Amino acid sequence: MQKMKSKFDAFRQKINVIIYGTNTVYGRLFDLVLLCVILLSVIIVMLETVKSFDAKYHSELIILEWIITIFFTLEYVLRIISLKKPWQYIFSFYGIIDLIATLPMYFSLFFAGTSILTVVRALRLLRLFKILKHPQFSSQSIHLKEALLASRGKILIFIYFMLISSIIIGSVMYVVEGPAGGFTSIPISIYWTIVTLTTVGYGDISPITPLGQSIASAVMIMGYGIIAVPTGIVSAEFANSHRKKLKAEKINPCATCGTDGHEFHAKYCFHCGTEL
Amino acid sequence: MQKMKSKFDAFRQKINVIIYGTNTVYGRLFDLVLLCVILLSVIIVMLETVKSFDAKYHSELIILEWIITIFFTLEYVLRIISLKKPWQYIFSFYGIIDLIATLPMYFSLFFAGTSILTVVRALRLLRLFKILKHPQFSSQSIHLKEALLASRGKILIFIYFMLISSIIIGSVMYVVEGPAGGFTSIPISIYWTIVTLTTVGYGDISPITPLGQSIASAVMIMGYGIIAVPTGIVSAEFANSHRKKLKAEKINPCATCGTDGHEFHAKYCFHCGTEL
Amino acid sequence: MQKMKSKFDAFRQKINVIIYGTNTVYGRLFDLVLLCVILLSVIIVMLETVKSFDAKYHSELIILEWIITIFFTLEYVLRIISLKKPWQYIFSFYGIIDLIATLPMYFSLFFAGTSILTVVRALRLLRLFKILKHPQFSSQSIHLKEALLASRGKILIFIYFMLISSIIIGSVMYVVEGPAGGFTSIPISIYWTIVTLTTVGYGDISPITPLGQSIASAVMIMGYGIIAVPTGIVSAEFANSHRKKLKAEKINPCATCGTDGHEFHAKYCFHCGTEL
Amino acid sequence: MQKMKSKFDAFRQKINVIIYGTNTVYGRLFDLVLLCVILLSVIIVMLETVKSFDAKYHSELIILEWIITIFFTLEYVLRIISLKKPWQYIFSFYGIIDLIATLPMYFSLFFAGTSILTVVRALRLLRLFKILKHPQFSSQSIHLKEALLASRGKILIFIYFMLISSIIIGSVMYVVEGPAGGFTSIPISIYWTIVTLTTVGYGDISPITPLGQSIASAVMIMGYGIIAVPTGIVSAEFANSHRKKLKAEKINPCATCGTDGHEFHAKYCFHCGTEL
Repeated sequence: MQKMKSKFDAFRQKINVIIYGTNTVYGRLFDLVLLCVILLSVIIVMLETVKSFDAKYHSELIILEWIITIFFTLEYVLRIISLKKPWQYIFSFYGIIDLIATLPMYFSLFFAGTSILTVVRALRLLRLFKILKHPQFSSQSIHLKEALLASRGKILIFIYFMLISSIIIGSVMYVVEGPAGGFTSIPISIYWTIVTLTTVGYGDISPITPLGQSIASAVMIMGYGIIAVPTGIVSAEFANSHRKKLKAEKINPCATCGTDGHEFHAKYCFHCGTEL
Repeated sequence: MQKMKSKFDAFRQKINVIIYGTNTVYGRLFDLVLLCVILLSVIIVMLETVKSFDAKYHSELIILEWIITIFFTLEYVLRIISLKKPWQYIFSFYGIIDLIATLPMYFSLFFAGTSILTVVRALRLLRLFKILKHPQFSSQSIHLKEALLASRGKILIFIYFMLISSIIIGSVMYVVEGPAGGFTSIPISIYWTIVTLTTVGYGDISPITPLGQSIASAVMIMGYGIIAVPTGIVSAEFANSHRKKLKAEKINPCATCGTDGHEFHAKYCFHCGTEL
Repeated sequence: MQKMKSKFDAFRQKINVIIYGTNTVYGRLFDLVLLCVILLSVIIVMLETVKSFDAKYHSELIILEWIITIFFTLEYVLRIISLKKPWQYIFSFYGIIDLIATLPMYFSLFFAGTSILTVVRALRLLRLFKILKHPQFSSQSIHLKEALLASRGKILIFIYFMLISSIIIGSVMYVVEGPAGGFTSIPISIYWTIVTLTTVGYGDISPITPLGQSIASAVMIMGYGIIAVPTGIVSAEFANSHRKKLKAEKINPCATCGTDGHEFHAKYCFHCGTEL
Repeated sequence: MQKMKSKFDAFRQKINVIIYGTNTVYGRLFDLVLLCVILLSVIIVMLETVKSFDAKYHSELIILEWIITIFFTLEYVLRIISLKKPWQYIFSFYGIIDLIATLPMYFSLFFAGTSILTVVRALRLLRLFKILKHPQFSSQSIHLKEALLASRGKILIFIYFMLISSIIIGSVMYVVEGPAGGFTSIPISIYWTIVTLTTVGYGDISPITPLGQSIASAVMIMGYGIIAVPTGIVSAEFANSHRKKLKAEKINPCATCGTDGHEFHAKYCFHCGTEL
């Protein structure tokens, strides 16, 4: 009994290294295979929604989808087995995603599949964000993340300002334009304001009265101008984190006079001439 | 009589703390309730303009609106009562907004309500900008405001340049395209130019002659390129205010005279000449 | 005779001060009147092209336009008289603009007015760019101009790159999409590419084949991404000119040890401690 | 025989200088002629696809195209002859482009020309990118290239993030909107998401349900906001390369060991310790 448990432990260890490790050959191979299967599964979900394609290859898509579902089920079970504290994985963000994305196919055995169930499988895609934690990209993505986090406060205020402005401008446009130009209600007018402020400009709704077009022009110029605000915030933050990095690399103080700010390649203190 | 006045003063004091204070529990609760009621009132205004919704729940919306109007009337009266110099509030920006946003419902008792009266109530939303003065956000929003104020001059020149360019390009497009492509008058052509320059691009009016399309292409590239100008201005201003803040943090004060702001490599105080 | 000439000289002097001066009361008043008349004349040109308005007020517009034309004719003559070397003005950029913008009305006496002649009068608007040379705005507009001039080379290369890319992508889309989606010729496809790359997106032409939509998606992401390039160039240039200005303000070298970079308010050299 | 070979070598030398040189008069003239012929050939390809123009001038276009094809054939042969190691050119990027762009006309003798063959000739345009290596532009374009290369990693992560987000948002919109609003399949929904995220906004597909419009609004604000990310990255990189250049210019070399790059306030060489 003891022996069997130790054997199982060894097996669990092995699987753990393959599934969670990124340093061994098998670990990397597993990551690569997983990546391909995820992409394949998402492509299948997409193709199923293309009527003309689904009509021709319906059965092939279903078979492929079942193979993939079994693969993910197996992976899910192995992930749980290979951990000492499986609950940590099961109730983690990715654990829940994995479960939710795998279940729909089994449901479809019992219920007529709705389109929502089909699409839920596309959530698997979220797992691809994990790649950004891979050592190769992590330094870059951490840099990105830090700059965005640092400018979070200002960007939230900016979005808050934009939303309130959109509601006010939308209300005004509803009064000015009225239903003739497509501004049938305030929510629709707010939708139009956001479409215009962000310079997307679908053209499904557009003002037709001279006054409405004048206000619209002002909104466009405003939208065109205030894009400078988030951009400026993030730019300054990036430049700032750059500078911080440069500064952090330059401390390196002199033992004699205490002057710091020496470059890495400096051999003598630039202030007192002592060897560093 | 004296006693009654002092009692009233105490009452006024209490209300003042609740309405204007942000440090007491009741003050914060009042702010929160106010925020919710404002949002609710704006949502009601929006829903009233959605025909299908209004048809079903017209009486419920009216009742809710009356409850909210009475709440705001009470708040308005209490604000006036709680101040020693009520005129300062009544003629302040927010005082006038509060009054204008509350009156429409009372007017609707005597006159058949027009859509303008309905929408005026959405002005209450302007009060939400007050939140940006809240201590939690104020440092961020002051930073934003300063950078925008510092670049105000350049941005005004930029908008002036864009407006004149729009009129000239609009006039040229009116001659080149004519009514066939929708360019029925110069004001409409100017509207099209702004729609294009700001990269909004509704598509309700678009050039159809080869020459018109060539000019339009040039306008688009121009619009795509000159967005760099406001962005560059604001970015530089943000970076600048960042640098100023960093400088202010490099205190490094002099022990003799207390002047701070010495650079790291400084050996003598630039103010009194003592060795640092 | 001599006396008459000297009298004329004094008159010329007076007019010169009013027309070209910006420091006297009359000079400023003249500038302001001129600004208003230019704006009025441009508004009239605009309104003449609005059919519904022109039908009602045609004669009033013509009368106003003649008053303005006589005003500008007088101004043109006075400008020439008030200068010692009138040719310098007549053949200057603004001199030619003034003449071209004034002539159309006189032509319309002899020929049936065409729309081109009408619109040529809008060229008067170019004179409004002169305002940017006004002392109040000049420091800001010089700053803008310098930063744009400094980034001119890079922006030209960027536009060159964008144009060639547009032609190549346009040619590819012509082959891929064909006339069904509106891509009837390569020039039209290039027009579409520019509309898409600059994120304007009219929607008058849009791809309908899956391959075309995939390429379009790539073009959009490219256009969305490379807007960073001109913005980055101009931002860096603005930040740079900022830094230069800051540096120029800080030279101020020490007489004893030669160290520079002292702030304006520094009283002692931060390096050797001598009084500055 | 020997003499003939040496004569051929001299001829080859001469051609080589003309074709590949950029310093002699003939070399520059050749570059200019080549530039004009390439532009002319591309304009002809364009005009051939404009039905109305091609109908009128079909034979003239064909004749011009044959003249240009013979010119490019001759150029191709001379380029090969003038090199000692012709294979280096033949299998280089531009060598293959030159060949592919010249062949279609010869094919059209034997086969009925398809539109693909016509357009392949537009590939000649790629040769225009060579101009950016010209000394006059190279310093600027190298600067651009370096800043873009330095931000490559972050921009790839950004595009990766955008693509996955597009797929997820597209799937959600497919479920929410359905075929009524034009969201007929997930790939089409993804196409719509990219059109919206990049603020292009054709309007060929646009949401019609309130929920869909709400999600669309969120996507627009997201797209409007995250454009700050690539812009911020590139801006910071440009500012950084600016700073590097400024540093490189602050030579201030050491008299003893010749090391440069000392800061202005340095008193001793950081490399050999001698007083500066």
